[in-house]
Amino acid sequence: MATELVIDVKNQVKQALVEVEKRNIENVFFVACGGSSALMYPSKYVIDREAQKVDAHLYSSNEFIHRNHNKLGSSSLVILCSHSGTTPETVEAAKFARQHGALAIALTNEPGSPLAQAADVVLKYEWGQEANAFTINYSILYQLVFGVLKVVENNSKFEAIETSLENLQNVFEKAVSKYQEKAEQFGQLYKDEKIIYTMASGANYGVAYSFAICILMEMQWIHSHAIHAGEYFHGPFEIIDEETPFIILLGLDETRPMEERALEFSKRYGKKLVVLDAKDFDYEGVQDEVKGYIAPLVLNYVLRKYADQLAEARNHPLSTRRYMWKVEY
Amino acid sequence: MATELVIDVKNQVKQALVEVEKRNIENVFFVACGGSSALMYPSKYVIDREAQKVDAHLYSSNEFIHRNHNKLGSSSLVILCSHSGTTPETVEAAKFARQHGALAIALTNEPGSPLAQAADVVLKYEWGQEANAFTINYSILYQLVFGVLKVVENNSKFEAIETSLENLQNVFEKAVSKYQEKAEQFGQLYKDEKIIYTMASGANYGVAYSFAICILMEMQWIHSHAIHAGEYFHGPFEIIDEETPFIILLGLDETRPMEERALEFSKRYGKKLVVLDAKDFDYEGVQDEVKGYIAPLVLNYVLRKYADQLAEARNHPLSTRRYMWKVEY
Repeated sequence: MATELVIDVKNQVKQALVEVEKRNIENVFFVACGGSSALMYPSKYVIDREAQKVDAHLYSSNEFIHRNHNKLGSSSLVILCSHSGTTPETVEAAKFARQHGALAIALTNEPGSPLAQAADVVLKYEWGQEANAFTINYSILYQLVFGVLKVVENNSKFEAIETSLENLQNVFEKAVSKYQEKAEQFGQLYKDEKIIYTMASGANYGVAYSFAICILMEMQWIHSHAIHAGEYFHGPFEIIDEETPFIILLGLDETRPMEERALEFSKRYGKKLVVLDAKDFDYEGVQDEVKGYIAPLVLNYVLRKYADQLAEARNHPLSTRRYMWKVEY
Repeated sequence: MATELVIDVKNQVKQALVEVEKRNIENVFFVACGGSSALMYPSKYVIDREAQKVDAHLYSSNEFIHRNHNKLGSSSLVILCSHSGTTPETVEAAKFARQHGALAIALTNEPGSPLAQAADVVLKYEWGQEANAFTINYSILYQLVFGVLKVVENNSKFEAIETSLENLQNVFEKAVSKYQEKAEQFGQLYKDEKIIYTMASGANYGVAYSFAICILMEMQWIHSHAIHAGEYFHGPFEIIDEETPFIILLGLDETRPMEERALEFSKRYGKKLVVLDAKDFDYEGVQDEVKGYIAPLVLNYVLRKYADQLAEARNHPLSTRRYMWKVEY
């Protein structure tokens, strides 16, 4: 990958951490909408498991504003994300955060956008087919989060995550070439479905959520719902039968037994099961102690190929919208 | 209502608070599965808005165990709930909490159950048609939560919530008699639907979640998904059309503008909209400062009548199951 981009990303994160160090950070709020919110779920999982002191909260931007969490203040770090940097609720959330004295760090693809202007610190990420994995939103967010844990409370995993992310592009490419045929089969087999559920837990739940609300509902107008693999047995599992499709994710984090249990049950009563198991991928260059955190990034990357194939098989491009950016809302 | 039961509930809560006062509580974990988890969402909303110091987290029981939140410890209060007290994941979660030194308080209908035995303190709630609203799970949980905020950090709303809950049964009955006809119409109009979405935000989101996963998916085998009203515009709203039914809740809490916006949009592009507006109810005896917190309890009570009518119109009793309690899982 282009060395300048790697250095640029590292410098951006370093500068953000300089601002973090100036504060006495006690809690982190992850604030965004839709897909940008979903990509923050693994980071909340990281803080929940790793932090001795820092608390993590995650809210959709408008919920963050209206809920008005009582502990938002000068000891808060608010991490926001909007791809275009124009999502009105997220721009407002950045202003709201700063009005409450919090440090607002924004991730965006557009460093000149309203969100970038509303935040204290901007982290620009790359995007699209040509972007190296080290420079994408998920990667920069992890560098920031592990960096925060390092500077605030001496967590030791920053170097492990940084090295692993530097090697992620290779993991992505190997995973995709292994799953390309499965992705094509998925498109052909499921192109006529009216509803497709997704399911995961722990660090991987956000990936299931993103696929349900962004890919299936938004981009394909297919009914969906990301079921939490633990909640499955307390209501949702009554819906499964031989006709109802489920995409079931298995990660490498500590909650994997929940996903395995959900899969095992689903195999007994369902027939239309699409399984992506993070164990199938080659993690060369990823350190063991952060593998569970890296798995959702790989699952998400591979699932995007499933989305491409589904869109092609249905002749319904992922860019098609009927309301978004087209009507007032 | 029977005075003894009221006194008994108050005494139970008082005893629980004695145990809380012995600790230095810094955070509260709400831990349960399915419907028992959903009833805790409004309480997380309360702590988020009200607490100066105490943090609130909410996890499905098995996620709570496997995620192993790093700040679970002797300064933690873990509030658990299982109606029968036999939910294995929740019983395990109570043991897990106590192994980590936390105070475990369990709500259950069965004070002799495994969950009751695994917890430090048991709060028995009443249930069913004959139970007075003051003695149900939602009410006892609120008494506990506002009580915790009172004894830990002098929050002043305990008396307001207690008085309001004492008058809740009347509010329930008036609300139901006003909406009974609408509930019957709902059953008739929607009995043949294959999918019904629910939507809400803030204090009311848990009610939408519960209706989606417990009533529709579990008890009626109707596809569903509780959409967050703020997330709606960032993906899910692309699914709405004149054929897709939505149950939209409007509460009285600070997030109501989100629910109103979601409804306004849905009215323009949807036709099958079922709206329950908490403004329509008579809150005599409920104090203004806690009305937003009480609204989800009323919405939930009224929605149960919608469930009854739907089950009757579909000739599919709410007690019908194909897997739960019938097969191994």
